[in-house]
Formats: sequence, C-alpha cells, structure tokens
Amino acid sequence: MQDLFPADDAFVAHLRSLLPEKAFRDDPAPYLREPRGTWKAQAGVVVAPADTAEVSVVMRACHAARVPVVPYGGGTGLVGGQVMPEGPAPVVLSLERMNRIRRVLPEENVIVTDAGVLVEDLHRAATEANRVFPLSFGAQGSARIGGSLATNAGGLNVLRYGTTRDLCLGLEVVMADGRVMDLLKRLRKDNTGYDLRDLMVGSEGTLGVITGAAMKLFPRPARNATALMVVPSPAAALKLLACARDIAGETITGFELISGQGLEFLKDELPDIRRPYDPTPEWMVLTELGTPARVDPQALLEEIFAAGLEAGLASDGIIAQSEAQAAELWTMRETIPEGNRLTGAISSHDVSLPLSEIPAFIEEGRAKLAELGPFRLNCFGHLGDGNLHYNVFPPRGEKRDAYMPRKAEFMRLIHDLVQAHGGAFSAEHGVGRLKVDDLARYADPLKLEMMRGIKALFDPRGILNPGALMD
Amino acid sequence: MQDLFPADDAFVAHLRSLLPEKAFRDDPAPYLREPRGTWKAQAGVVVAPADTAEVSVVMRACHAARVPVVPYGGGTGLVGGQVMPEGPAPVVLSLERMNRIRRVLPEENVIVTDAGVLVEDLHRAATEANRVFPLSFGAQGSARIGGSLATNAGGLNVLRYGTTRDLCLGLEVVMADGRVMDLLKRLRKDNTGYDLRDLMVGSEGTLGVITGAAMKLFPRPARNATALMVVPSPAAALKLLACARDIAGETITGFELISGQGLEFLKDELPDIRRPYDPTPEWMVLTELGTPARVDPQALLEEIFAAGLEAGLASDGIIAQSEAQAAELWTMRETIPEGNRLTGAISSHDVSLPLSEIPAFIEEGRAKLAELGPFRLNCFGHLGDGNLHYNVFPPRGEKRDAYMPRKAEFMRLIHDLVQAHGGAFSAEHGVGRLKVDDLARYADPLKLEMMRGIKALFDPRGILNPGALMD
Repeated sequence: MQDLFPADDAFVAHLRSLLPEKAFRDDPAPYLREPRGTWKAQAGVVVAPADTAEVSVVMRACHAARVPVVPYGGGTGLVGGQVMPEGPAPVVLSLERMNRIRRVLPEENVIVTDAGVLVEDLHRAATEANRVFPLSFGAQGSARIGGSLATNAGGLNVLRYGTTRDLCLGLEVVMADGRVMDLLKRLRKDNTGYDLRDLMVGSEGTLGVITGAAMKLFPRPARNATALMVVPSPAAALKLLACARDIAGETITGFELISGQGLEFLKDELPDIRRPYDPTPEWMVLTELGTPARVDPQALLEEIFAAGLEAGLASDGIIAQSEAQAAELWTMRETIPEGNRLTGAISSHDVSLPLSEIPAFIEEGRAKLAELGPFRLNCFGHLGDGNLHYNVFPPRGEKRDAYMPRKAEFMRLIHDLVQAHGGAFSAEHGVGRLKVDDLARYADPLKLEMMRGIKALFDPRGILNPGALMD
Repeated sequence: MQDLFPADDAFVAHLRSLLPEKAFRDDPAPYLREPRGTWKAQAGVVVAPADTAEVSVVMRACHAARVPVVPYGGGTGLVGGQVMPEGPAPVVLSLERMNRIRRVLPEENVIVTDAGVLVEDLHRAATEANRVFPLSFGAQGSARIGGSLATNAGGLNVLRYGTTRDLCLGLEVVMADGRVMDLLKRLRKDNTGYDLRDLMVGSEGTLGVITGAAMKLFPRPARNATALMVVPSPAAALKLLACARDIAGETITGFELISGQGLEFLKDELPDIRRPYDPTPEWMVLTELGTPARVDPQALLEEIFAAGLEAGLASDGIIAQSEAQAAELWTMRETIPEGNRLTGAISSHDVSLPLSEIPAFIEEGRAKLAELGPFRLNCFGHLGDGNLHYNVFPPRGEKRDAYMPRKAEFMRLIHDLVQAHGGAFSAEHGVGRLKVDDLARYADPLKLEMMRGIKALFDPRGILNPGALMD
C-alpha cells in the first residue's frame, strides 16, 4: 500500500467538484465497522453514486490519484471484506443509492437490477411476478445484491438453486480505471470467450465494482412443506438426504443439519424461541420441499420420514401442519447464529467438504478438540451443499475471553483438518481480511500466482479493496 | 506466431528422448482435419501422453522451445478449435490415452475422471452407479470430457442440468510452462479466491491443458416420458414451456424446437428415419420428463398437452407409449444435423438469445433472408436454453456451391441480428477459428482487452492453440 494516497481534504474537494452533493454521506462511522466487531477503520470518505456513470467518475478520480476504494454493499459480510483498517484513508464506495430494479422479465425468468438493491427487495419483486428469487440468508434484509455477488453468497437454498454465482447471468462492472465493462447478457448459454463474469463473482471487490446484474428467477413452487427429523448421526443425515432425493428429486429446497448444542444455546440465551424437543436430540435435519400444484409435498415428506425410520436413518420427526408451524421451525434454524453470538464463540468456521468426508471430519474434529479440553462445538449448516458452520465455544460456565489468545490455534486445527479432507476453509462467506493467511497457506501456489497476475491486470495500481483476499 | 518454431525433426527427437515410444502416434492425418472439412493442417506431430506427468513433460519442452501446442480431445468440435492450419507445425497433444475414470462417488454424486475419457463412457459409469451424467450431444461417442470442458459443450439436457461448466466441480490443469495447477476439488461451495476453474472452462485450449476433472452426477430419474407436440409458432412454444414448467417443475429434461424444414430435409435425404407427421407441420417441440418413482411423467405430459390445447399453444401431439417410440422420436431429433449436412448449408449458426427475444429474432431473420432470395431456413435447437441452430440453405433444387462466396454476408446478417437482440453468436460450440472475427467485432472491447491480458499471463509465449479464440 506504499504507493497509495489517502482520501484527504484536497481529494475530497476534488470529488465534490465532480459529483452532486447528494452523493456524499455525512457520517462515515457506520461504514467503518463490521457486524462481528473485529475490524474497525479509522477514517474514510463515503460516496454513494446515483448511477453507473457516477461510479465511473469516482473510480477514474481514485485511479488517477491512487486513492484506495472499498466497494460497499449492505455491510453484512462476516470476514471483514468491507472494512479497511490499515493504510491510507479510503473512499468507501457505497452502492446504496443504486437501488433500482431495471427490468423484471417473468417470461424469461430473469431480473435485471442495480447492484445496490436489497436481496429482500428482489424477493418481493420476484413474488409480485409469481416467480422466486432464491438467494436467501439471514442478512437478506440489509445485504445488497452487488455485495452478494462480490462475495458469492450462499445461504439456505443452494441445494436446489445454486450459489449467487450460479444465479448470475450477466454483470455490469466498473473497472479500477473507471471504464465500464458490459457483460450484462441475459443468456443461458454464451460461449464467446473467457468467462470474466464468474471471475468477477466472488472477487470481493478487488477486481472491479459490480454496478448491475442479470439474475435468474425460477417458477414459484405451488406448494411447500417442512419437516424436522431427528437423526442418529451426520452420516445418517447424509444417507437420509440421498433417500429424500430418490423420493422427491429436485423439489428439495433445503436440507439443514442442526446440532443439539445449537439448540441448547438458544434455550439458554433466547428462551422465547420455540424448540420442539426437550431434552434436545443430538442431531436433527430441517428440510423443505417445494412442488408443482399436482404433487403433494407433505405426502413426499411422510414417505421420506417413513423410509428414514425403516432404514434407521431417523428416529423421530415433525412434519409442519401449517405455514405458521413451518415458519417457527425455520425461525429456530435462522436464530442459531444469534444464539452463537450471545454465547460467544472462540472461533467460527464456514467450511466446505466433499459430502462423503463430512462424518469423518466431524468425528476427527470433535476428538481433536476434546484433547484440548471440554470445549463445546456447534456444528450446523447446509448439509446438502457440504457446507458446515463449525464453531468452537468455551467450556460450559466459562467465557470466551480467557481463550481468545488461543483462537489462531483453534482455527489452524480446524482448517488443517478441512484441508486434509479435501475441503475449503471458506464455503460461502469468502476470504475477506479474516482468511488472507489461510488462502496463502492452503491454496495451490500456482493458483495464487495467477490470482496475483489477474489482480495486476484488472487493477494495476492496486486501489481496489487493498488488503482483502491477498496481501 | 512469428516467435514460434515448428515441431521439426530435431524437436521431435528431443521429445522422443523424454517420453516412451507409446506416446507417439504414427499417422498424424486424422488429427489434422475436422468434421466439417473447413480447416486442414499441413503438418504436426501427434503426442498422446499416458498421464498428467507426461503432459507436463510435453508442455515444458514445447514452452522451452516455443513450439505451438494444439490440445486435442475427440476432434469433434465444429468451429475449428482442434486444427491449426497456419504457422509452424504444432505438437498435437491428444488426451486419448488418459482415459481412466479415477473415482466414482455415487454417495456424493461426483465422478472424478481423466480428461481423455469419452463422454459416453462417463454415461456408462454413471449408469452402473445408478446415477446420471447428463452431458448429452450427438458426438458423445467420440467426444472426450476434456474437450467438452475446453469448449463448454451444451447439448440436450442443459435446461435441467446446465452446461459443461455448470457440471464441473474441479479441474486439474497443466499450464503452458508445464506446471500443474490443482483445482481438483469435489466441493459444491468454495469461496477461496478467484474462480480460475470457470476461467479454464470454455477457454478452448488457449490457457492450459485440462488433464482431469471432478464432475457432478445426479440421481437417476426413475421414470421418463417423451412427447412431440405441434405448436403454431416459436412464441407459442415458449409459452408452452412456461406452462410445462408450472405443471412439471424441474422434471423437464429437454425442450427442443423442431422446424418442418428440418424434417423435410430428413424426408429427402434420409427417408428411413421415421417422421410421425405427413405433411410436416411447420413447428414442433420435443420434450422429455424424468421423474422420481411416485410421479407419473406420462400423466404430467398429458396435463401439459391438455393445457396447451386449451390455450391454443398446441394443436396436435404424440405421447410416446413405449421406450422404443420415445427413442424413435429422439432419433428423429438427433438426425436433423445429418439431414442438414447432406442437404448442404450455406451458413450454420449456433446462437443464443434472451428467451423473450426469440420470436422477434426468428421473424426478422426470416424476413431479411427472404429479401435476398428464396433461401430455406432450418431453425431448431434447445429452445429452453434460448439456443437456436439457425442454418441457411440454398433455394430448393439448387446446390450450395454457387452461394458459398456469399457465406460471410449471410453470417454477418444473422450475427448482427443476434447482437441487436442481446444475444451471443456462439451458444455451445465456442469460437474456435470460425468465429475469431465475430468475437473481435461483437465483444465488449474491454472484455477483449482483459482476455488478451489473461492469455499473456497464463501463456506468456503464446504456444497454446495459436489462432483459436483471438488472433
């Protein structure tokens, strides 16, 4: 960062000469911190352009003056990609005013949108057109689609509909030097040269600023049904998933693993959240089906549950009998991260594994942690995607503070184990600033070398999100 | 190519000192031409390494000596990507001996394979494991998975299962300088840096040599059913597809548009192929459903057909009553390209359009061609993906030879129209050598600039498939 310069008064005055008053945010404070409180920036000027042309103006100015730029969506990322705590004060480039849905094309199952539109607003627009925009995760009320694309967000419906990358058909990107790259096609097939779209998705604001996107919509399932099933083990849960797929095919929207420990945290910290079992079983799965009108999803769930019982893959279960009951089960699932937060994890992991490696990974991880002490584990997540959230907590009755100096040790232990099983140390949250060292340690060195070359090509002055992804 | 040197006797002797005798093919002739006969190479030495290490040896040697390399799969590509007709004699690097399926993991729905395995052999392995490997196209008996990845092949099942890119989880790549890049993960989610996998897929042998891949498998639908429906227009066919999706959800495996002209060519050239209608209707769709055991696909097709009749979207139809009848209908569909070949097209187009632009594109194209003369059009293809094969033939009773000097004019006319409708001049066949000028004309200049930069980064000496994709 030695070649970069701060967004000082003179530079801000220059920016103000280029952009209307409305583009400037008065209070930078909310933009300089992130949800987990790990990273804080000292200074920065927040600019919120109204359109792609204004983004281009900002980038041209920053490129010319070598001022760092932190592209900013909803600020909900969990790995520090949106906060630059070191180096010269950056321009925080917020897409919040680019919040226009450009086109809804239900006959194509496509929505074209500004990057600053809230994920939840895309849901609403899709619903109005009798379609589904399936990207769904806890922060969807504050997260914006541009940030979701930049981090390749995952969430609850990836099993059926794919990651944010899979949902993206086209992009509009402002490059580091302010030029606009038009990749904004609405095509299901396009074999016209290198796939720069997928290169931009997941690049965490280091290769360009996403200003617009064409995203897939899907037909709205006419009927939905939800079940919570008690399973003897994660291995049984995986077999139950295979069995469910044989019975229900692609109608399985989500298949979530829940650990008893997670519900125990809810019981202690958020006792108002309804939990259907007491005492809490050790392992459960929560699944949802969405079917066309003529297929009865409850009957399919009953069949799955019966097959699971028969095969010893499930011992108990609840099939929601109303939308309210289904919503209650999903609220329980979606509150688990808040229960974790209130309990206070020593380390949190968003890891991905080949499906068949999951049982061994969970067992070995448990054994290795047990050697270190009576730590508590909450292992939950999107089992169908091989994506586990694997969080380590202090022994019962203790606070995490005493253990925080050992955080790096825990992270190393878990990520080494993930690597040994052919997994990835980041599944859906990205690398950000939290996992820069992990990327350097675990990625193929040739991949890193090519990544650095691509970074130098797209952003030769290194102004885009310095410190994220790579040093 | 001025900095490249031919694979001359001295270089071949050097290669022979590095590799076992078995790695060399005696007769290069079959490797120096392609199916449509447009490109022919004069010379080249064909090397078929046994494993990734030998590929690495070849690339290291070629890199050191600046000898061009044409990576070679099954040789079935239709845009000349596999033949280098100009410049110094290349090493043709055939993956044919790397034909080992490395692992079949039905419990993960994954297959890990050498790049030289035939697509059809992957089908067989998947079937044996009670799974589906869905990539399916006419040349699947000769095409290899490495070539399918390099060209991001499409085919008949993209609507349900996606393109080759969508089916790929991980890759092993030998770089231009012989180093091996390990991206061979089996993960559904992996957010650990730039997406180099999708950059390699579709790069047509210009960025590296794909030597291994992890590909998705899917649960095998327990039941299948096929229907041919007569529709009044492509616009009606698109509405019928939307209607079919409401009724049958994701169980629709394919949805193919067939034009009467295509069947007339079959009647003239291949009269033994059974065609169910005489006289031939102007437009038809052929669709297949694959469902879990408890869902009756024939009943769903009946419902779709009834809804289509009711809404004026279909006027007649056949639901196959046996596997033999279904196979006959698919044979008719899959023989259309052979009918085209025997008739002799002036120009053939593999184009992609936003779904809602298709009816206008077809109408405008027809009108523009009619202005030029009584040319015949065969417009067919993967309607659900917006992928049309749009081929122009001489007037009835005439041969194409007299019109071949006008081929470029026809291509320009069609591709300009595709561009005006937001489409792509290549949907599933790639750019190869056929469409280098189209890429230069229609792609965003900034995209081209970044592509050139990436090419220079991955292949600084320009030895990989010179002349393909870009000049």
